[in-house]
Amino acid sequence: MHGWMGKMAEVDLTTRQVKIIKGDPEQYKVYLGGRGLGARILYDRVDQKIKPFDPENCLVFTVGPLTSTSAPTSGRFSLTTKSPLTGTICESSSGEKWGWQLKKCGFDALIIHGSARTPTNIIINNDRIEFKDASDYWGQTVSATKKKILSQYGRNADFLSIGPAGENKVLISCIMNNGLRALGRGGLGAVMGSKNLKAIVIKESSRTVPVADPEKMKFVVAESNKMLRAHPITSKGLPEFGTTALVNIINEAGIFPTKNFQQSQFQDASKISGETIAKKIFVKRTGCAGCFIQCGRITRTKQNEGEGPEFESVWALGANCGVGDLETVANAAYLCNELGMDTISTGGVLACAMELNQREKIKIDLRFGDGKKILKYIAKIATREGIGNEMAEGSKRFAKKYKSEAYAMQVKGLDLPAYDPRGSQGMGLSYATSPRGACHLKGGYMIGAEILGAPKMINRFTRTGKGSYLAEVQNQEAVIDSVIACRFATYALGAPYWARLLTAVTGITYTGEDLMTLGERIINLERLYNLREGFTCKDDTLPKRLMREKVSNGPAKGQVVDLKPMLEEYYQFRGWDTKGVPTKEKLKELNL
Amino acid sequence: MHGWMGKMAEVDLTTRQVKIIKGDPEQYKVYLGGRGLGARILYDRVDQKIKPFDPENCLVFTVGPLTSTSAPTSGRFSLTTKSPLTGTICESSSGEKWGWQLKKCGFDALIIHGSARTPTNIIINNDRIEFKDASDYWGQTVSATKKKILSQYGRNADFLSIGPAGENKVLISCIMNNGLRALGRGGLGAVMGSKNLKAIVIKESSRTVPVADPEKMKFVVAESNKMLRAHPITSKGLPEFGTTALVNIINEAGIFPTKNFQQSQFQDASKISGETIAKKIFVKRTGCAGCFIQCGRITRTKQNEGEGPEFESVWALGANCGVGDLETVANAAYLCNELGMDTISTGGVLACAMELNQREKIKIDLRFGDGKKILKYIAKIATREGIGNEMAEGSKRFAKKYKSEAYAMQVKGLDLPAYDPRGSQGMGLSYATSPRGACHLKGGYMIGAEILGAPKMINRFTRTGKGSYLAEVQNQEAVIDSVIACRFATYALGAPYWARLLTAVTGITYTGEDLMTLGERIINLERLYNLREGFTCKDDTLPKRLMREKVSNGPAKGQVVDLKPMLEEYYQFRGWDTKGVPTKEKLKELNL
Repeated sequence: MHGWMGKMAEVDLTTRQVKIIKGDPEQYKVYLGGRGLGARILYDRVDQKIKPFDPENCLVFTVGPLTSTSAPTSGRFSLTTKSPLTGTICESSSGEKWGWQLKKCGFDALIIHGSARTPTNIIINNDRIEFKDASDYWGQTVSATKKKILSQYGRNADFLSIGPAGENKVLISCIMNNGLRALGRGGLGAVMGSKNLKAIVIKESSRTVPVADPEKMKFVVAESNKMLRAHPITSKGLPEFGTTALVNIINEAGIFPTKNFQQSQFQDASKISGETIAKKIFVKRTGCAGCFIQCGRITRTKQNEGEGPEFESVWALGANCGVGDLETVANAAYLCNELGMDTISTGGVLACAMELNQREKIKIDLRFGDGKKILKYIAKIATREGIGNEMAEGSKRFAKKYKSEAYAMQVKGLDLPAYDPRGSQGMGLSYATSPRGACHLKGGYMIGAEILGAPKMINRFTRTGKGSYLAEVQNQEAVIDSVIACRFATYALGAPYWARLLTAVTGITYTGEDLMTLGERIINLERLYNLREGFTCKDDTLPKRLMREKVSNGPAKGQVVDLKPMLEEYYQFRGWDTKGVPTKEKLKELNL
Repeated sequence: MHGWMGKMAEVDLTTRQVKIIKGDPEQYKVYLGGRGLGARILYDRVDQKIKPFDPENCLVFTVGPLTSTSAPTSGRFSLTTKSPLTGTICESSSGEKWGWQLKKCGFDALIIHGSARTPTNIIINNDRIEFKDASDYWGQTVSATKKKILSQYGRNADFLSIGPAGENKVLISCIMNNGLRALGRGGLGAVMGSKNLKAIVIKESSRTVPVADPEKMKFVVAESNKMLRAHPITSKGLPEFGTTALVNIINEAGIFPTKNFQQSQFQDASKISGETIAKKIFVKRTGCAGCFIQCGRITRTKQNEGEGPEFESVWALGANCGVGDLETVANAAYLCNELGMDTISTGGVLACAMELNQREKIKIDLRFGDGKKILKYIAKIATREGIGNEMAEGSKRFAKKYKSEAYAMQVKGLDLPAYDPRGSQGMGLSYATSPRGACHLKGGYMIGAEILGAPKMINRFTRTGKGSYLAEVQNQEAVIDSVIACRFATYALGAPYWARLLTAVTGITYTGEDLMTLGERIINLERLYNLREGFTCKDDTLPKRLMREKVSNGPAKGQVVDLKPMLEEYYQFRGWDTKGVPTKEKLKELNL
């Protein structure tokens, strides 16, 4: 029954000690892996007395039962830690091969704590974990780091690393995966930086991952692949157009935030759309190893080449800054990757600074639409130079310094992504209740139902019913993040597929209903974490602009987010009291 | 733009006159066809002064924009009338070829009113509609009628007809489609019987149905078929196992009503399951003409052969009557088809009589589990012989006669189908609010989300959020019933597909959101119809048993339906007042 279970490695950077821990079968069963297992481990190890930059904060890397199996999109891994940007529990996941390799080294979790005295790299070679001096890596950009690692450890080495932004503990820094993908949000790069950890390299992995019922697995995987090949989003939309296909869709729906959410449609949207990207800068398709969808893009501008820009980056560095020049937007996104910075929060703090300038709260040579200046300020943030040092703290702290918090478009310190919730009420509730602050990935992607009609179309302007609908979406997403699989696959594959895949791999019978309870438990555990940190229902809110200023034109004209009734329904449906605290009965029901 | 629009035929049986009416493009645009167009026509023609058996009541047969096109499952048609069983608006739809042929005769609607002095058949030959004496048809069973029609009008003739039950105005009689399928619920056969109308035959149809954008149509149909071929329910579940695959699933979920809902699991479920049907009586697969799914079954018992029995029939004449003998259940279903009776309501009134007997309210030789007697009583009901004459009025009126209304498991007079709502709260709300009374087809099939996880899994025991979720499901189902397509196709194809298919056929741009509004309008119109008939919020209820008696065992143990909060949320979400009456604002918003 437990053949699929590997071990956990606990790595202490301070003492350079590695401890191998046997996983607890019961814990695996009810938390699966990824986000669920990460939440459990972080809850047990990092309490409210430990600050994000304290050596005792843990980086909890986890994979899931499906990782490295033949299940579709099973190459993902997850990182959970306490975020220095938000102070919340913060989980982030990424694809490509690193997680796959970690599992093939025999590890389901890699728990890193402590702090190295000097810059250090961690090198994993099957079940051997070593520490290497990384003084000559420190200060290097992400691409330089990549070059160095590949020449030192061979071309098959996979690695996670930070760029200069993470080293400088920029609160909007990210961790780069293989130099191209990102564990983007919440300033995770700064946590690595605070530990003097530059990179985690997997040199070789050769373990085979056993599956409980190979015959069943073969059948369910074939069924799943059939659906992925048939569904228009996974077989056509994402492979052919990538995530930026959303630019025109979201803009036409009148929820494409423009100039720090002052408008909801961007006049130059077509200049930065997926269609234009395909015409102007597209080089070739790319994607995670072994994934059928291949949603990624290699692109090339006059100056540079890189992966992306994805939809969120195009929006954050484009429409949200009022920039409609595609080459500039792409170059800005490449630069964020190179310096190891979250494109969404970078766009967020840039747009915030632009609005403060517009309203004469600060004086700065950075105006909406001024694309040329963006690159300069991204570099300033990464190196904490001049006002860049203040912007490196993220829009919330930056705006607060100038007594202008209303112009920081953030929740719990995390900058909003590319959807104006005034035209998608459920998305507003999602931002308000997402455990790591406003984001499109961890609070429940209501754009699916409210805009794209996936898995079914619901009215985007109504309030009633959104609380319960969102809660179910959150539960399901928590399951997928623990399985661990790619959200894009869920357009084609509903909960019953994942239950069948899990059953085949683990030999434990899971049903769709079991998974719902499992997801609910994870969400409640994350909630308990944040409550222990001192967060209250007052933090489940939105920037005032979105609750007071009506959308001025377009299909969402006249709308504001009517948060209160949705939040009440959400708490009630969750079995939380009116202050958003899980009731004893609910916790007992969930064995928490 | 209106090439796809045909004409409407208005047939007066009293005067034997036929009037051809040109359709109103605006009406087609906002009601589409099928259920929507039927509701509009019935609302305008049959008001509260007209009783179901009055000659002025209309049988409104409609097809939809997709009928007879290459769109998947586009062979369906719809009938709307005032039900003699419930007194509500009652819409029913069926597949096979009759609707397809009607459209190919050039008709989008066939409105039949008046009453013939002697038994009459209507014969349609392209756009010629004739009346034929049917005295020698009267009294014939459905199969005898079929034989006669095929020999008289050729083997390609398609027809709808009633059996002896409809002739005898049995309130639980149905209209049979091609001798095998049924327009089952609400006593529709009795409306034909009251008009002395035995059959409606289509002899020949040769019009081609034009499509606005054939290129686009080809593309979207190919996309749709790809999804149907990939989705496990449409590509495997339904084709391989038929609807009776549900027997074990629903029984295991503890919501398979047994012995008139006194229990929720049937000990002999496995004896009447789809698996056992496949092993014991299955002959071959069948289905609607041109449909890829082919969910139907030809079966054979020692005594007989026929189509079905479908899941609902197996439950109604099996578990609900405590009968676990498959041959008996199949023979009973064949007999209902032969006499033209609704299997669900027949099972309902039989189970009701059995419980009245058990509780000594009546004395009758009919006990739970006594399969042999069932056939005898079905015949008695069809011919209104002895107590069969009382049972022919349906369980509500029958139980009332014996002051035992609590044992009639019905809403608005319509008997409940095969799902105990105590283990599927949303289904309880669906029964209470379904426009034609308790059914699994017109009130919103919450079993999809609450039990099957389609299109997504939601918690079946919670109340919050069910009102709004159900309303959206109802709106979507109203669209599919107007498009008009088969519900089974919607497992694989969401609203955006239907929008694209409609756009290709009509040349009018429909979006998923447009369809939602369209569906909402239809539901509101049906509501207005029932309010005009004198129905109030008090009729939006359930049998007391389901709200008071806890389920005694199984996975739904301890549950009752908690209707009130769900109903309040439902009204609120719908924009109806606390009495369930649409507000002026809502009607204005919907242009009603």
